[in-house]
Amino acid sequence: MIATDINPALKPAEFLLGTWRGEGEGQYPTIRPFRYREEIRFSHNGKPFLIYAQRTEAIETGQPMHREAGYLRLVGDGRVEFVIAQPIGYAEISLGRVDGHRIDVECTSVARTPTAKPVTSISRSLWLDGDTLRYELKMALEGVPLARHLVASFSRVD
Amino acid sequence: MIATDINPALKPAEFLLGTWRGEGEGQYPTIRPFRYREEIRFSHNGKPFLIYAQRTEAIETGQPMHREAGYLRLVGDGRVEFVIAQPIGYAEISLGRVDGHRIDVECTSVARTPTAKPVTSISRSLWLDGDTLRYELKMALEGVPLARHLVASFSRVD
Repeated sequence: MIATDINPALKPAEFLLGTWRGEGEGQYPTIRPFRYREEIRFSHNGKPFLIYAQRTEAIETGQPMHREAGYLRLVGDGRVEFVIAQPIGYAEISLGRVDGHRIDVECTSVARTPTAKPVTSISRSLWLDGDTLRYELKMALEGVPLARHLVASFSRVD
Repeated sequence: MIATDINPALKPAEFLLGTWRGEGEGQYPTIRPFRYREEIRFSHNGKPFLIYAQRTEAIETGQPMHREAGYLRLVGDGRVEFVIAQPIGYAEISLGRVDGHRIDVECTSVARTPTAKPVTSISRSLWLDGDTLRYELKMALEGVPLARHLVASFSRVD
């Protein structure tokens, strides 16, 4: 791949670029707590968005668990727009801000397939803590208000 | 990557698996016709969906043009659900069917960011014609009814 200059609009989110590996913990009012291994990749192609992909797997067996992919758009004045597709039959638009080495977004629009899990909203925070990337994700389902679901931490591997 | 058995639910869409390269032609009532180079990849991780990613570039310069990513869910009885994120600030849920070596889907739900292009619907057909993968995509914008936008054809490279 030819190295491409980063788009100036991406500078506030440049701290996310790279491949990150780490582990996380899941919880939710309706399930038993669990742990997982995760890889996140943020890349770019010279345009004013980051290309986002992640996948998680079971720590013991390496079995694939979740994955998702999308784009983080930097639209000026610190505003960000996150477009994410999930294989559970769910697509989200989340809006928020980048402030220093921290991004907070909340779902403003959700599209679901007829067979999807009834996810109604997700809020995501993603921040750099020294050399460690961390996120926290809250999720609401039909009948379950927004509740903490995932926390994870990562080291950059590439 | 460890080879993983294909999920039996994916069998009807197995013909898509692999990396495909080709060229396409774009047109639309509001723009001048254009040509592009494209790579599409359909992969799987043992679950009942295909992992989808594609990107296009200018034929002359290799400059990145469009890209998108998502998941094609096989939900039984030939029904498919396509969840796609686009970096133009657009996420779509499209529903349809796989019939032989052909898939047709239409948008049933769209989520857009405040700064997104006003895409209101997309219909996609994707089929295998001998060894050639082909697609046709129609798009509607606010004020422009569904019109032919893209046609492309591909050879499998991997």
